[in-house]
Amino acid sequence: MIIVLKRNASPESAERLLERIAAAGLQPLHMPGSERVVLGALGDERVLADLALDGDPDVESVKPILAPYKLVSRELHAHDTIVRIGGVAIGGAQLAVIAGPCAVETPDQLRASAEAARAAGATILRAGAYKPRTSPYGFSGHGPAGLAILREVGDALGMPVVTEVMDTADIDLVAEHADALQIGARNMHNFALLRAVGRAGRPVVLKRGLSARIEELLLAAEYLLASGNDQVVLCERGIRTFETATRNTLDLNAVPYIKQRTHLPVIVDPSHGTGLRELVAPMALAAIACGADGLMIEVHRDPAAALSDGAQSLYPDQFAALMQAVAPVAQAVGRSL
Amino acid sequence: MIIVLKRNASPESAERLLERIAAAGLQPLHMPGSERVVLGALGDERVLADLALDGDPDVESVKPILAPYKLVSRELHAHDTIVRIGGVAIGGAQLAVIAGPCAVETPDQLRASAEAARAAGATILRAGAYKPRTSPYGFSGHGPAGLAILREVGDALGMPVVTEVMDTADIDLVAEHADALQIGARNMHNFALLRAVGRAGRPVVLKRGLSARIEELLLAAEYLLASGNDQVVLCERGIRTFETATRNTLDLNAVPYIKQRTHLPVIVDPSHGTGLRELVAPMALAAIACGADGLMIEVHRDPAAALSDGAQSLYPDQFAALMQAVAPVAQAVGRSL
Amino acid sequence: MIIVLKRNASPESAERLLERIAAAGLQPLHMPGSERVVLGALGDERVLADLALDGDPDVESVKPILAPYKLVSRELHAHDTIVRIGGVAIGGAQLAVIAGPCAVETPDQLRASAEAARAAGATILRAGAYKPRTSPYGFSGHGPAGLAILREVGDALGMPVVTEVMDTADIDLVAEHADALQIGARNMHNFALLRAVGRAGRPVVLKRGLSARIEELLLAAEYLLASGNDQVVLCERGIRTFETATRNTLDLNAVPYIKQRTHLPVIVDPSHGTGLRELVAPMALAAIACGADGLMIEVHRDPAAALSDGAQSLYPDQFAALMQAVAPVAQAVGRSL
Amino acid sequence: MIIVLKRNASPESAERLLERIAAAGLQPLHMPGSERVVLGALGDERVLADLALDGDPDVESVKPILAPYKLVSRELHAHDTIVRIGGVAIGGAQLAVIAGPCAVETPDQLRASAEAARAAGATILRAGAYKPRTSPYGFSGHGPAGLAILREVGDALGMPVVTEVMDTADIDLVAEHADALQIGARNMHNFALLRAVGRAGRPVVLKRGLSARIEELLLAAEYLLASGNDQVVLCERGIRTFETATRNTLDLNAVPYIKQRTHLPVIVDPSHGTGLRELVAPMALAAIACGADGLMIEVHRDPAAALSDGAQSLYPDQFAALMQAVAPVAQAVGRSL
Repeated sequence: MIIVLKRNASPESAERLLERIAAAGLQPLHMPGSERVVLGALGDERVLADLALDGDPDVESVKPILAPYKLVSRELHAHDTIVRIGGVAIGGAQLAVIAGPCAVETPDQLRASAEAARAAGATILRAGAYKPRTSPYGFSGHGPAGLAILREVGDALGMPVVTEVMDTADIDLVAEHADALQIGARNMHNFALLRAVGRAGRPVVLKRGLSARIEELLLAAEYLLASGNDQVVLCERGIRTFETATRNTLDLNAVPYIKQRTHLPVIVDPSHGTGLRELVAPMALAAIACGADGLMIEVHRDPAAALSDGAQSLYPDQFAALMQAVAPVAQAVGRSL
Repeated sequence: MIIVLKRNASPESAERLLERIAAAGLQPLHMPGSERVVLGALGDERVLADLALDGDPDVESVKPILAPYKLVSRELHAHDTIVRIGGVAIGGAQLAVIAGPCAVETPDQLRASAEAARAAGATILRAGAYKPRTSPYGFSGHGPAGLAILREVGDALGMPVVTEVMDTADIDLVAEHADALQIGARNMHNFALLRAVGRAGRPVVLKRGLSARIEELLLAAEYLLASGNDQVVLCERGIRTFETATRNTLDLNAVPYIKQRTHLPVIVDPSHGTGLRELVAPMALAAIACGADGLMIEVHRDPAAALSDGAQSLYPDQFAALMQAVAPVAQAVGRSL
Repeated sequence: MIIVLKRNASPESAERLLERIAAAGLQPLHMPGSERVVLGALGDERVLADLALDGDPDVESVKPILAPYKLVSRELHAHDTIVRIGGVAIGGAQLAVIAGPCAVETPDQLRASAEAARAAGATILRAGAYKPRTSPYGFSGHGPAGLAILREVGDALGMPVVTEVMDTADIDLVAEHADALQIGARNMHNFALLRAVGRAGRPVVLKRGLSARIEELLLAAEYLLASGNDQVVLCERGIRTFETATRNTLDLNAVPYIKQRTHLPVIVDPSHGTGLRELVAPMALAAIACGADGLMIEVHRDPAAALSDGAQSLYPDQFAALMQAVAPVAQAVGRSL
Repeated sequence: MIIVLKRNASPESAERLLERIAAAGLQPLHMPGSERVVLGALGDERVLADLALDGDPDVESVKPILAPYKLVSRELHAHDTIVRIGGVAIGGAQLAVIAGPCAVETPDQLRASAEAARAAGATILRAGAYKPRTSPYGFSGHGPAGLAILREVGDALGMPVVTEVMDTADIDLVAEHADALQIGARNMHNFALLRAVGRAGRPVVLKRGLSARIEELLLAAEYLLASGNDQVVLCERGIRTFETATRNTLDLNAVPYIKQRTHLPVIVDPSHGTGLRELVAPMALAAIACGADGLMIEVHRDPAAALSDGAQSLYPDQFAALMQAVAPVAQAVGRSL
């Protein structure tokens, strides 16, 4: 860690800060320049974070040298982690495709949608029983009844299921019904939920927050790993920018960036990442081309009648066509479906 | 609500959509133009939201006419709501100043910081017992022990206290110790928390999310009001933008925008809104000048030793100077301290 | 165009606005609702734009129905435009690869870099003689001398050349030396330059501005087409967001979005779109997978010695490997190199 | 400057880089840590910028110690610069108010608008003869004829005038007619324009770009000062963010941030900063409260008939009321009108 002192900081200030660094068990360094005094602190910077040197009135800025995440990093754990949801592996040569409607609406709706998804090649079923909605007047899911339907349809079709949990109070119930727990974009910074889900003993699909920097996504994953759970799949699903043509800006840069720095698998959700049905297929192909380990896609038997996210849900035949198109791209980058 | 059809939409599609609009109890309107067919739906648009017409393959876009919030709007409730936290009113001619350290660290630290805040004119004490931290390795607060210290110091100094709650499981305990519950920026979209806090019977300070549009902040407040609680104070605390010189971009536009459209009081947190101690005072003055009903400011007896947010915490004498500077600005805009 | 009146707008206001709409040659529509009066104006909305109805004190908002661009739209011009730079076509089944160093530094540097690019399969040479630099102290290009070197190397290797023009005063000189003119991201909203380049009689590569919405990029292209030049290649090169891990956020959503709505070819610049050498190859593959018509990539014979953009420039062998990797992805989506 | 090497960088790489640092006349520093080797380079970092060490394959990141701007910094020039436009000083105790319509439309329109502005207390007249417009179909100003009208009205009313220049080819003509040249937000990164305007011998109002970081605004000003012109007024006019309720997000944090670090005066444009007439007055007060040296405000005799920016233009009586409201706030912060 590099500590830049203010222009007028006194030698005593530097002295005092060097002592704090040494007291924290780090190796202090003194670099007096012509315009600024710079201090260094070598060792495990996470210890130093708690010293909060940036609150000191003589400190101009603090610049970390090391990434603030540790357990998720390849530096500690070089080879790829394979996450298993039900019998499906995510993170190896074979791509994982998670598909299904935004929400569990009715048993028939879910079953028809899931059958279409499976027929086209999806291997994991997704659907929400608890739905985050910006407005209190929107459909917010069927809760426990939705979970039961989801489990039933998953069992009937032989598909493991993943679904979102939004409240620590619901974790046990959701974990009982689902093969994997999803932490949604709006809860990526819900640290109480992260800690509790980390202890729930289920694989986790962790979606990137709307305004989360990649480093923050990795620190959210670090919460899960620090709670004892390394079965974590990261999901890029678009970030919020000034662009209004699309619902979100799908940040595919994040895929290779994360793959190069961490050992966790990364999937992409082009449905939320674009918000527009017509863009889902091309962006799914792009995701695979840049190294994603899988896709999460909204498919509904009748999007025009969907209670939520209809504009970004694929029709069954569109999803089937997309899967056909994914196969050769996967092969072109050394992967398979 | 205005529904624009795709260029090649058939007359049958328009017919079908008009029937759905009518079936939802809204008045349908047909406006065939030379380049696009436009449909209208007059009435309570929130009903129509559930129709989710944007999922229809023949619909190009859906444009709402009315704001999606209702209970928070001045259209239904014209006069200002006064929120009372302990004996302190927020929303009238007198400004409310909430101050204190970021976190409860020790009884001494809190008491000294609170005494300084009160001596300078603060009327409500803030300090966190549960701290959201980006990294799992940061100090995350003392929890229940912190709540007890906070209550004790508040009682000793005769200051009502506000503190953050991050988990539905903690609401009862926090409500027992605090005069008002704070929902932090990272939980503004935690809908389970919003609903539960809405039912807790305590005033709420609702902070704007890092990437929340103003409309989304108002819809989060709508969750609280729809749960039966109208004692809600909105807090602008900066949004995330591309700017890196400051921790956040304080969006003061939001203050008059919200004041003109809603009846709820709005306060401003220039500590998080800037992240830099030197900017807190000028931005506090700006907040008052553009109509804020109060301030929330981090004050610590020794920011250089603070366990969190030291860089944006004021020294006691800086806070006292700020309060001196606020008074004439308040008077200039017809308010008082 | 839909005009929503303020809640308390009088019938006389509506009357007055309807008359202005009719006077502009558009068909006026009156839709009185229970909560708002809504007006419509059917016809060519660009005429109405000049009426600037949003300045009226009784108007709450104006919502366009049609996209504001016209000449670039597929609605008027359904089939793909093929742009020809030198002998190279952009926009057809064969992908175009534009490569070269950020800047012309020396004849040797350019020639070695260009030879490497051509040997690996690049068909158009890029290099800047005029470089936009954030700081006045950075290397800003060799100007006319750089243009001469560029032309010479292009001719020697049989590669058409594209280079940036930043000032209307330089257009003639640049057009004399280059096969295509580039308008850089920082000048996408330089309307004087757009008009003048539109009249220069050379194909144009138009890069998206750092904070330009897609619609604004298309309107910038509309300037060029309105000046009589339809040989325009659009280039997605990343937008500015809150993310700091990468230099920009490459918005690949823009590629299929634009391809679906306009007839102009779209290429992608993953060098600027990521700012990190290690991300260039995966994002180039992603660009091709989602439908880009080509790539623009920075290649330097020795990036560690580059005077600008070294961190995002590929080594010759990295570029060769990338071209090898692009071929099967191109084939997977029905394109060729 | 701190140079962090990649984890696997060899001792030879460090050696080689240290030699480059020394060869550039800077003092090299070697700091081998347990996890990374860190190098330092002490001295004038702008020299090092040209070394472009971030392009080296063994370099992970480069962290500057000093701000990249120099001539605009208070470190070199401690006291406030006073800029004089005509007889009006900007940067002292007295606030400057620049007002007028968005564009010169007709002699009558400009004169009536200017008279209203002057009567209420504005001291400098603004109006555009060259208007940047997103669409090629919008009104783009009367050019030379507009300049003549502006000069005439300014002379008749005894008001110095400021107007935008968009093209290097127009600088002489604009400088002949105007007391100060404005560089608009869309041209803040038009470096050819910056250099040429810097040499034009007129004071400059430099507006912040829509997506320009504060540091970039200061570097754009550095271009002007480096060209020999220190009569530069910086103008905060709102940045582009995800918020859609307002046209831009007025970043008032920038005002005290810049005032603390540079000697140049800073004014605020709440018209563009909000885009909504109702927000102009409160945000003007906020700007003064946080230390702005003046305001730039759009006033039109009849905004409903304005050819551009009507929605954000004040009616004459609104502007007069605003000026009345500004006076006591100015006094509260030790300034005068």
